[in-house]
Amino acid sequence: MARDRVPHGQGVSAEFSLIDLIRDRCAIERPDVELGVGDDAALLAPPAGQQLVACTDTLVAGVHFPLATAARDIGWKSLAVNLSDLAAMGATPAWALLALTLPDGDRDFVVDFADGFAELAGRHHVALVGGDMTQGPLAINVTALGLVPENRALRRDGARPGDLVFVTGTLGNAAAGLRLLARFGDGADSDPRHAARRKLTSALRRPIPRIAAGLALREVASACIDVSDGLVADLGHIASRSGVGIEINAAPEPRAQAMQRDLARLDCGVTRVGRVVAGSGVRVVDAAGRPIEPHARGWEHFS
Amino acid sequence: MARDRVPHGQGVSAEFSLIDLIRDRCAIERPDVELGVGDDAALLAPPAGQQLVACTDTLVAGVHFPLATAARDIGWKSLAVNLSDLAAMGATPAWALLALTLPDGDRDFVVDFADGFAELAGRHHVALVGGDMTQGPLAINVTALGLVPENRALRRDGARPGDLVFVTGTLGNAAAGLRLLARFGDGADSDPRHAARRKLTSALRRPIPRIAAGLALREVASACIDVSDGLVADLGHIASRSGVGIEINAAPEPRAQAMQRDLARLDCGVTRVGRVVAGSGVRVVDAAGRPIEPHARGWEHFS
Repeated sequence: MARDRVPHGQGVSAEFSLIDLIRDRCAIERPDVELGVGDDAALLAPPAGQQLVACTDTLVAGVHFPLATAARDIGWKSLAVNLSDLAAMGATPAWALLALTLPDGDRDFVVDFADGFAELAGRHHVALVGGDMTQGPLAINVTALGLVPENRALRRDGARPGDLVFVTGTLGNAAAGLRLLARFGDGADSDPRHAARRKLTSALRRPIPRIAAGLALREVASACIDVSDGLVADLGHIASRSGVGIEINAAPEPRAQAMQRDLARLDCGVTRVGRVVAGSGVRVVDAAGRPIEPHARGWEHFS
Repeated sequence: MARDRVPHGQGVSAEFSLIDLIRDRCAIERPDVELGVGDDAALLAPPAGQQLVACTDTLVAGVHFPLATAARDIGWKSLAVNLSDLAAMGATPAWALLALTLPDGDRDFVVDFADGFAELAGRHHVALVGGDMTQGPLAINVTALGLVPENRALRRDGARPGDLVFVTGTLGNAAAGLRLLARFGDGADSDPRHAARRKLTSALRRPIPRIAAGLALREVASACIDVSDGLVADLGHIASRSGVGIEINAAPEPRAQAMQRDLARLDCGVTRVGRVVAGSGVRVVDAAGRPIEPHARGWEHFS
């Protein structure tokens, strides 16, 4: 961690400091990390011919996750939301920085948080190379750094009229999981008979970043976005950045079947949901082509 | 910004969104930014032969700055603390990501914050390439990315017995500024006759990252650290990472005069404060070599 805002000197003696706890639990060897946690900054060696892909996301307790969320799930999720942004660029994750704001020095929380973070980091061989620990209302900021070959990144501005629009996986699982927890409490998915529920709550607690899908889509997609605000709102970003319109529809498209077959090797699967058209904005039409007004336009803060 | 958590669609119409406000105020053209704010992640092109230097720091309202701090000063400071970490590595700043957590969508705050951030970013040609805006208790996280030629970074682990220990600038100005504000309130430095006070409060409100000093010290220093926890505590980090002891003393050292003359070109100046010795830990001795017990060991959170 860049700034050592945890007990040193008195009171820690043989016990690990909180930062040492996190560092040790998130230890991943990468030859491109010249210097990781423990100096003023990390020293990293991006390989030649690769572009650096950088994103950052903050999770605030009570806003981005319920206050009762398990520390392990918070640790996992704080990295997952960032890796999802890298995936949407077609990048391979490499390094992460973690800025943890804690109300107090709760050692058990930190251990569990670090274990959840490390579990996902390990799957993608992401090295935690630096960070910061501060006192304040519980919030977690992660910056993820990834790599992509030059001119191969998936961007929001590449959509062209005639392109088909696909989503990976299934939309709405996390939202459904949140409703389940709100209705049935933390035990909503604790029973072995709750497999169906668990699939939904797991999408909320342990979202899976679609790294493999991002890499595969580099070969075929003209544009890509991480759906986080809602399908209509996020397709709106693609439309505006690409200077096109997008029609969300349920019409059969023969071309889509070939693509779905081709991408069936992705464990998340893909589903065609629309097409890119000339114009601007996003509109939703029913199977007969009649416009539908969606009842929600997407997540909006400060409104 | 990676995730557009501010009003879109309804309610903003011709008005800029908060993210557009920040992006427009922090616009810096750099040819190594392939894609900045506005996609899922930034696309950056680190030049060959350079290592990437990465750090992150969070400022929490009421913890790292008084609640009454002007938004412009918060904007400046949130970048400055990170650029100080890059400076301590001997790096040239290049890019930054900003994760802003705001209790509400206060447009005036965001404009002033962005202006303060942009003022410092402009001085060092730092491009804001991405970020995140979320709702929650006021906190600011900045990740700064810099560049340093391979194997030229200043690290904490390079100190060797016989080295002299220097500090740049004057220690304690920001702490004195904080006391002035606590005692005399926000008007402590508002009078033109308060030039001496303003020097101290300015160190608190508008710390100057020592980028030029870091670059110059790459030629002469064996180790370096950004003093943030206090001199004794931070030299303790150098001592432990380098496997040496450090003696803080006031003894004249003829070699020091040559160094101070050589580094007089740095506008902050340097002062010799000790020397590196065999052993471990940091001890303070008076002019006659007698040990002194410092009354504070440095900043400690969670203790």
